[in-house]
Order: sequence, then C-alpha cells, then structure tokens
Amino acid sequence: MKLPDIQAHHPDIQINLTRVGVTNVKKLVQVARKDKRPYIFISNFDLFVDLPENIKGANLSRNFEAMDEVLEEAIDSPVYVMEDLCSEVAKRLLERHEYASRAEVVMRSEYIVKRRAPKSNIQCQSSVDIFADAVAFRDAKKKSLKMIGAELVGITACPCAQEIMREHAMEELEKLKVPDDVIDKFLSKVPMATHNQRGRGFISIEVHDDYIAPLDKIIKIIEESMSSNIYEVLKRSDEAYIVERAHSNPKFVEDCVRTMAKEVVKEFDNLPDDSMVTIKQLNEESIHQHNAFAERVATLGELREELKRAVNGEV
Amino acid sequence: MKLPDIQAHHPDIQINLTRVGVTNVKKLVQVARKDKRPYIFISNFDLFVDLPENIKGANLSRNFEAMDEVLEEAIDSPVYVMEDLCSEVAKRLLERHEYASRAEVVMRSEYIVKRRAPKSNIQCQSSVDIFADAVAFRDAKKKSLKMIGAELVGITACPCAQEIMREHAMEELEKLKVPDDVIDKFLSKVPMATHNQRGRGFISIEVHDDYIAPLDKIIKIIEESMSSNIYEVLKRSDEAYIVERAHSNPKFVEDCVRTMAKEVVKEFDNLPDDSMVTIKQLNEESIHQHNAFAERVATLGELREELKRAVNGEV
Amino acid sequence: MKLPDIQAHHPDIQINLTRVGVTNVKKLVQVARKDKRPYIFISNFDLFVDLPENIKGANLSRNFEAMDEVLEEAIDSPVYVMEDLCSEVAKRLLERHEYASRAEVVMRSEYIVKRRAPKSNIQCQSSVDIFADAVAFRDAKKKSLKMIGAELVGITACPCAQEIMREHAMEELEKLKVPDDVIDKFLSKVPMATHNQRGRGFISIEVHDDYIAPLDKIIKIIEESMSSNIYEVLKRSDEAYIVERAHSNPKFVEDCVRTMAKEVVKEFDNLPDDSMVTIKQLNEESIHQHNAFAERVATLGELREELKRAVNGEV
Amino acid sequence: MKLPDIQAHHPDIQINLTRVGVTNVKKLVQVARKDKRPYIFISNFDLFVDLPENIKGANLSRNFEAMDEVLEEAIDSPVYVMEDLCSEVAKRLLERHEYASRAEVVMRSEYIVKRRAPKSNIQCQSSVDIFADAVAFRDAKKKSLKMIGAELVGITACPCAQEIMREHAMEELEKLKVPDDVIDKFLSKVPMATHNQRGRGFISIEVHDDYIAPLDKIIKIIEESMSSNIYEVLKRSDEAYIVERAHSNPKFVEDCVRTMAKEVVKEFDNLPDDSMVTIKQLNEESIHQHNAFAERVATLGELREELKRAVNGEV
Repeated sequence: MKLPDIQAHHPDIQINLTRVGVTNVKKLVQVARKDKRPYIFISNFDLFVDLPENIKGANLSRNFEAMDEVLEEAIDSPVYVMEDLCSEVAKRLLERHEYASRAEVVMRSEYIVKRRAPKSNIQCQSSVDIFADAVAFRDAKKKSLKMIGAELVGITACPCAQEIMREHAMEELEKLKVPDDVIDKFLSKVPMATHNQRGRGFISIEVHDDYIAPLDKIIKIIEESMSSNIYEVLKRSDEAYIVERAHSNPKFVEDCVRTMAKEVVKEFDNLPDDSMVTIKQLNEESIHQHNAFAERVATLGELREELKRAVNGEV
Repeated sequence: MKLPDIQAHHPDIQINLTRVGVTNVKKLVQVARKDKRPYIFISNFDLFVDLPENIKGANLSRNFEAMDEVLEEAIDSPVYVMEDLCSEVAKRLLERHEYASRAEVVMRSEYIVKRRAPKSNIQCQSSVDIFADAVAFRDAKKKSLKMIGAELVGITACPCAQEIMREHAMEELEKLKVPDDVIDKFLSKVPMATHNQRGRGFISIEVHDDYIAPLDKIIKIIEESMSSNIYEVLKRSDEAYIVERAHSNPKFVEDCVRTMAKEVVKEFDNLPDDSMVTIKQLNEESIHQHNAFAERVATLGELREELKRAVNGEV
Repeated sequence: MKLPDIQAHHPDIQINLTRVGVTNVKKLVQVARKDKRPYIFISNFDLFVDLPENIKGANLSRNFEAMDEVLEEAIDSPVYVMEDLCSEVAKRLLERHEYASRAEVVMRSEYIVKRRAPKSNIQCQSSVDIFADAVAFRDAKKKSLKMIGAELVGITACPCAQEIMREHAMEELEKLKVPDDVIDKFLSKVPMATHNQRGRGFISIEVHDDYIAPLDKIIKIIEESMSSNIYEVLKRSDEAYIVERAHSNPKFVEDCVRTMAKEVVKEFDNLPDDSMVTIKQLNEESIHQHNAFAERVATLGELREELKRAVNGEV
Repeated sequence: MKLPDIQAHHPDIQINLTRVGVTNVKKLVQVARKDKRPYIFISNFDLFVDLPENIKGANLSRNFEAMDEVLEEAIDSPVYVMEDLCSEVAKRLLERHEYASRAEVVMRSEYIVKRRAPKSNIQCQSSVDIFADAVAFRDAKKKSLKMIGAELVGITACPCAQEIMREHAMEELEKLKVPDDVIDKFLSKVPMATHNQRGRGFISIEVHDDYIAPLDKIIKIIEESMSSNIYEVLKRSDEAYIVERAHSNPKFVEDCVRTMAKEVVKEFDNLPDDSMVTIKQLNEESIHQHNAFAERVATLGELREELKRAVNGEV
C-alpha cells in the first residue's frame, strides 16, 4: 500500500510560515576532543524550517534524519564545537526540505566545568547552562549565522546597603573615640556586611559562520564579572575567602553587565563590528522575593564605540 | 543620618544599558468591570527602564511606587483593560526615572474563563495564560506600543495518520464486499482514528497606544483554530461530541497557525497594517516525546496581502 | 442512544488502587470573610478516591460535581477556611463514589499578604504558597484528617562565615592597637559580613477534623524563624534595617527548623499530641549552586517531649 | 589562624532533626559497563543525615567528600549500578558524620535508551527519568534500603470514548444496511477513534540491600503497560502502526497501573514480600486541561495476594 502524503498537499489557507518544526528533542551528543576522552552529554534540540504558502505541511521526520547524520559524524570527528554542530544540521535541513529558504537549529545543554576551591585547592564541579542557535539560508548571498551563549551562577554583594553599613560602622567607631586614620585603615581592610545573593550572568554572541566565539572565554567572562565566582565544595578557609572577596567587590546588576560588556570587547577583538551581543544579569535578591535585572543588547561595534568615547572623556 | 545614594554615582565603565529593572514581582490586581463584580487576580510583573552610560544604577524602588499608584487607581476606575494598565505604569516609570528614555512593563497572569459543555450544558472553568507588554518613550515622536497576548490549550487530531487509517478502513470494507457508495457514505459520517493531543495555541498583537486588540477576541480565535476546544467537565455525551468534532476537523500545527492568521485578519480589520502579529502552535504529540511547532511572525499588512493574493489566485 | 459505561465494568486485572482521580484542576475560589470583601483566588486541586479491585474505572466527572457544589456554597458562607473547604469536598466525593472507602483532596494556591516596611512604613505585598490536604474515610471509626501548610521566602545569614569574618575584624583591630574593650563594644554593635541568601521555610500541620491550625499563625512562625523576613518594597533606611537585623541574627538551616519547631509547640498548645508536624528549611546558598536543607517530621507530642527534656537539662 | 567551628556548638534549641544536608547537587557520573564504553551522565543528588538534638549543625562539605570518593571509585569498577552507587555513598556518609544514625542519598537523572521504530526499523533515542534513593542505618540491626524507579512517556487511548464511537459506527453501518456479520468483522479489524494522549507511567521498587531490581526490567514494564510505547522518529508506516496498536489496546489510567502491578509481580518473583512497590500513571488528557491519575502503593506481598485471590475467583 502506498501511504498518502497529506503534507505535500496544497493548504486551504495560503499563508507563509516563519518556522515549522520540532521542539524539545533530546539526544545524546558525543563530541570528540583532542587528547581527551570524548565529551558526552544529553542535549535538547529545536529544529525549524520556514514553509511557503503553497505547501500544507513540513515533513518533520526529515529533521531527525538530518540531525542524526550530523551527530553520527561528530562522534568520529575532532572538528565540531557545539555551535558548528548546529550550523551543520541547519545546512542539512535545507538539503532535505527543498521548499525551505531558511533553517534554524537551537540547542540547550547542561555543561560541567571543573574548578578548584581557592584556598584548599579541592576539586569540584560546577554546572553551566549552554545554548547555541544556528541559522542557514538557501540564498547564497545571505550569510549563515550562529549564536553561542552561556548562563551561570555566582554571588553578588550589594554596594548600596554596604555603604550604609560602612557609615554605620564609622559612626560607632567614632563614638568609641577610635582615631580617624585607624578607622580608615580598618575599613579598607575589612569589608562591611551587605545583602548578597545568587546572581545569574548571561552572555550570547551571534556571528557569521566564518567566525568563532569560544564558549570557554564566554564562561570565564561571566564568572569573573560578579562579586565572586562560587564553588560546590568549600572548606572553611575557602568560604571565608569567597565571602571576603565578594564583599570587597560589591556590584549592582548594572555593574555586572557593564563589566561583562567591557570584557567581551577586550576578549573578542577578532570579531567583526556587526556581531550581536546580548548580556544579562539577574540577581535573586536575598532581601526581596523579586529579582533585579539588567541587560544590554548591542552590536560589538556599538560597545566598542561607547568604550572608546568613555576613554576619550567624551561622555 | 543622610543615607548614601550609590546609584546616582558615575559608573566606572560607561556603557548604556538597554533594560534595568525588576522581574517576577507578584501583585494582586483588581480591575473594575461594568455591571459585574470586580475581577481580582495575582499577576506577575517585570518593570524596566533604560539607563544612560553616565549613571551607575537605577533606583528600583521607584518602580514599585509607579506600579502601586496605577494599581490603586485601577481599583476604582472602570476604564482599565490589562494592556492599558501596563501602558499607564510605563508612562509613570518615565516620570520617576528622569534619566530614562524608554520604559517597559510586562505582565503575565492566569485568567479563568467560563464555558458550558457542548451537549450537557454543564458549566465549567478553563484557565488561559495571558500576557501584556507596554513600551513608552520619552521622545514624543515615538509612539507608545502595547502588546496583548494569550495562550490556551485545545485538542489537535493529526490529518496524516487519519488518512492512513481511513485507507485501511476502506480496504477492509472492500475485502468484505461492501459496495463503494456505502463505504463513501459511511466514511463521510464516521471519522476514523488518529493520534490526537493537547495543542497550545498562542497569539499576540502589538499595536500603537490608540488602538485596542480585545483579549476576548484573541482567546476566541485560538480556541476555534484547533481541531476542537476542550472543557474541564464532560459528561459522556459531551466527550463523544468532542472526540467526533476533533476527528472531523484534523489539523497539523501548520493548519492551526494559518487558521489563526486568517481569523486575526478578519476579526481585527480595524487595526493598522503595521500592527505586529505573532502566532504559534505547539502540539504535545501523543506518539512522540517531542513537540511539533509552527509559527508566523508578521505585520498585519503582510498577512492581509498574502490572503488577498491567495483569493485572487496569484499564488 | 444510551451511552456505554465502560468504567462500571469488571476489570481484567483485579487489583485495588490506592488513589484514582484528577490532578492540576484550576478553579476560581471565592471565600467569604467577616467584615471584608470576599477573597478570590485561582487554586489548583487534585481529587482522589480509592478503587476496589472489582471496578474498572472511577467516574472522574463526579469529582467536579462534588467540588463545584462545595465551591458554590462557599461563596455565600462565611464559615469556610481553606482546609475545611477540602474536607467538605472529600466528604462529598465519598457520597458520589459509592465504591470508595477513602477520598482525598489536595489544594495548592498562591496567597498575597500585606506587609509594611519596617522603617518607612510603606505598604507592600508578599506572596505565600499555601497547601491543604484533606482525607475522609467511609469507615466511621476512622477520623477525617486535614493538613494545612505554607511556604515562604526570607533571608538567612550564615553564622559560620560570619564568625570567621568577626575574628578577622578582631585581628585587624588588634593590629591597629585598638583596645580590647573597644573592639568588643564595636563588634557587639556592628555585625560583620557573611554570605546570606533566600531561604524557604515550610511548615505543615496535620490534625483531626475537629481541630484548627490557623494559616496566619503558620505564616507568622515561618516569617519570624529566619534571620529576617523580607519585603517587596524597601527604602534605603528599610534596607539597612533588614541587612542589620539579618546579620545580627545569623542562622543555619538547622537553626531555622529548630526555631520553627519551638514556635509551633508554643503557638499550637491547643492541638493534640498526635498532630503530625513537618518543618523544612531550604537555603539557596549564595556561595554554592546547591541548596542547604534541614527537615523535621514528628508528632507534636514528640516535639513537646524533646523541648521539655531540654528545659529539664536531661539532654 | 584556626578557624572557628560553629557547627560543632551546642544548639540553643535542642530538637532532633530528621534530615539535614544538601539538595540539587549536580555531578558528572561515569559508570563502567561490561564490554561497552562507560556510560556518562549528569546526575542530580540530594544527600542527608539525621542530626541529634545536641549538635548545632551538620558539616555539609563532608557530604561532598563521601560522594566524590565513591564516584571516583565507580569510574574504574564494573560493579556499580545506580542504586548501589547511592547505597555506597550513604554508608560513607555515616562514616564521616559520626553523630548521625541514618543517612540518605537521592539521585535523579535523565537516561537515554535506544529503540527501533516498529516498521521502518529506524533507530532513535528515548529519554527516561530515573530515580534512586538509598538509606543506611548505623544500627546494624536495621537493614539498609534502596529504591530504584523510572518514569517514561507513552500513548494511552481512552476505552470509554472509543466504545461510544464504535456504537456510532455500528449504527451508521446498520442504517446503510450493511449485514451484522460484516459490521462485526469490520469493527474487529479496524479500531474506531477515541481521544488519546501522552501518558506518564512510573514504577519504583524499594528493597533491602541484598536484592536487586534491575532498571531495564522496570523501564520495559512501564513501556509495555500503556496503549502503546512511542518513538522519536516514525516513518509514515510506523505512525500508522502505532496509532492502530494504541487504538486496539485502549486503556484507562487504572488499567495501566493494574497492568504494571501484574507485570511487577511476574517479573520480580525473586524479591521478598516486604518489598515496597509504588506504581503511578498520569494521563495528560487531550480533552481536558487537567490530568487523570491512578496509583497503587503496596508491598509486593499484598500484590501477590490480590492476584492469587483473583485467579482463584475469590474476588
């Protein structure tokens, strides 16, 4: 029996569709690594093509064929990084969906990074949420795009409450007749209390296909832009170190985003001006149920321009 | 003691921020209704302003003052619909954050609608997820924008599997020597089996401040664009009715989006061409772990144009 | 046409079922209140009965009839508190499911409480997650049970890291030749820094039908058992007050649970010894990705006994 | 500087704690497998000990030492299955927390299983949620317990609505004068439509340490107890096969639980009568927003008894 192919029919309502596909596809991904055991992880994929007005349905099982083909190749090839994997699947989607002019592949995954506690040097694991999104076009004049991003958790300490606590300490020390220079020295050594909390930093960078924005660099920038990075295992000496570091480096959500923006400009000097950058910070405020949030969405060119003007004193 | 105001300081890194604010703020909202008891619900707000490069931090507690002021007024005023509430808060945010050029207010809520089962006429309640997003600008030449949207659940039955089951039924009836015209009559009366599942339809419409896109119309369009709407209470006769209706009206995700697009064009003929429309359908496939998805993002003008060309046979 | 009733059939596999029913039912609940406008909220229900081995299926639409009947009555009656509402529905489930020997109704809801910031006296709203669970038995000798519970967010400051920071401050002050008595006075006035974070406190109490465990008391105990309660709107003076209070009152998860246990014993002296108490604290550690957790599950009698022995110095 | 150890202090409120520990710890787990590449996955752990009334705080970093030690050993050892990994960590927790009398380790993970589509034989991957929970006691007379469980998604088709559709088909065929025996033959070959949906089956089995309840057996039982198992990739012929199979095997939530119970009794005949079994089925009804649910919690002995009585006709 030849089975009917309803998808190929002419639709009753002829309207173009921006994206048609499957979401929340879970796959075991294995990526070869130089001189190391392969990295294996469960990843979550969304796969889309556009659909012209004269076709009723996209054949969604083709999405799996394209994806499986690339994932199979990736096992034996040392070349793939995560966003290239998505780019390659996007290109194969165009091959298989002959009616499509655009294909998109989104990937989300948990990624484990190893860290050593700052004082005890104990090894521990942190988890990072990573994202990739690749778009391919049939029109050869349109360049493929790929986005890579990460989100991770650190600690942020509030500068505002700390300044109030600092003035409070100063007043108390003055009342106790402690000399001004001693107060200054003490307060420069010992940071005062403030509310602090889990902060979530996020950076994504979108570039044309021929550029690379390494994930490790992105993760490093996020980690170092909060009041302190955090660890899963801390001995007492580590804990004191982290608390002191975070309190010596208090930051608003705004500060975190600006620090990340500055570091992105510095670390990705090889990327072109039209690379799109999204930077976010969300603080799960310990003194509120709601969160504090800041975001910058800009091209790398815009960020470069703003920093240059600031350096030149033009702001 | 005068408390220090760190937020007003000059930041070390002078970079503009696109959005700074608070997210996941829960408030009890009370909206007056004509001739009815007021509608009260818990709503979830995000409130943002932009921040120029020369200011360290936005004063986030002002967001609450702006919001509370408007929510208080809304209790006694019959004029507010949900998206106007957001628009009004966005305007007050600009008044309070004198450095901001843009303010945005996002609102998410659960909304209960009453329905009657199709045969037994029993009353029941359905829940709908509703969204609003308003943006106000300081620059008088930029018009305020407001978005209103809803997502709800219905049933979708797959046309492709049904066609195969139909051919199977036909073959079996032929083998049993049932005459062709009887087979045709039978199959036109009794829809064959297929996989069916929860589908989630979504529509959002973004318009300039002086236009209105009523939420009830949006909800109605979504409900009527799947194979059938669904109910929380169904007597046996209702259940049979829904199953039969859904199977007589099988739909792909693509079909649902196109039906919604056509109905949006028809129902919102008063809205201008530059209104932005986003339409999505996600089917929680009963034969897969993953979901099927379709989406159209377009201006109302583009949708109108496509439908007109289709009617004129130009596709 | 008389519709077939498959549920009433004899099942192929004759095994008793502990609970059969519906989950995630959303209903608008309206509860009358003395001298106040009625309180209206969307609540989430699960409704179950047990099913004997000789019946194939429970008729689930009866669950809705029982629930709707009670919710309708509640609108006009000032008598219902949340857990009594569940108890009443559970009793009606037994009436409608003649084969059942046990019925259970679970309710989850968000609840808004009004609070005033400690210094500025500004009014704001906090949200609390509330739970109720009622079980009714056909056997008259088995007493109905009802559970009421709440979970809410506050701030917890770590005593361990604070002690280290305190010793660090002491050392620095000693190096600066500040006299010991001045150091002591200063450190008794100004609490030193530590990591602090959102903590989630939870208490549930299960009693026989004739007893009442008021929700407001439960919420108050949770709020007051962390390092400080928190608020959605804080002026600078409030923020300083909360930070100082939390740091003057550092608490481990263990301390929070023990404080709650002590207060439950004190506040619920009218409840019998066999009331089941569950107390939990979860801290979303700002220096880790993981959470710290503590829990006590005990009868009120056991808690009373332990506290008495401690007072008598028998531990 | 010797750092202070606040945790070892005497608490102000002397109350025992049932469980103290850490939750949501993410670790990369690598388990050796006979004749295969090691299986690597990110797992989520909760680790607890009890805490006597006279100790202020548990030293939570010891939990990580115990866990890391076992995970390190597991890499090179072919002996560990998931629940034994948890058992071993629980034992090490007791060694490190000398004050504890009970330790518990909970593990949750996503697990990928490979399947072949029923007709096309295409290979695809399904994801399964797996759970383990191990409890160890210091008291040698109390046997350690370990629980292993899994949850996975399949399709369930409703018998009740299908029976109505079947009677409807019968009536239509009768009206068309089709002879009764032809109608019977047709309806025995072609299953009629009904609503069907994603169902989630769950089984957990708790046994003493010396017994084993293989995860693969549990997964297989769940898969085969719904109307049909499902696949991530289906060619048109597979899709027709699944739809037909599911509609030829309609099942209520109650039926799924009873089928699982029967199979558990059959497949785990080596386990003792006091093994605790929890079986659940949740259907994400396609004609409702709410879910249908059934559950059985019993010892294996109770299930065996009930099935024996049914076979003997004693029910």
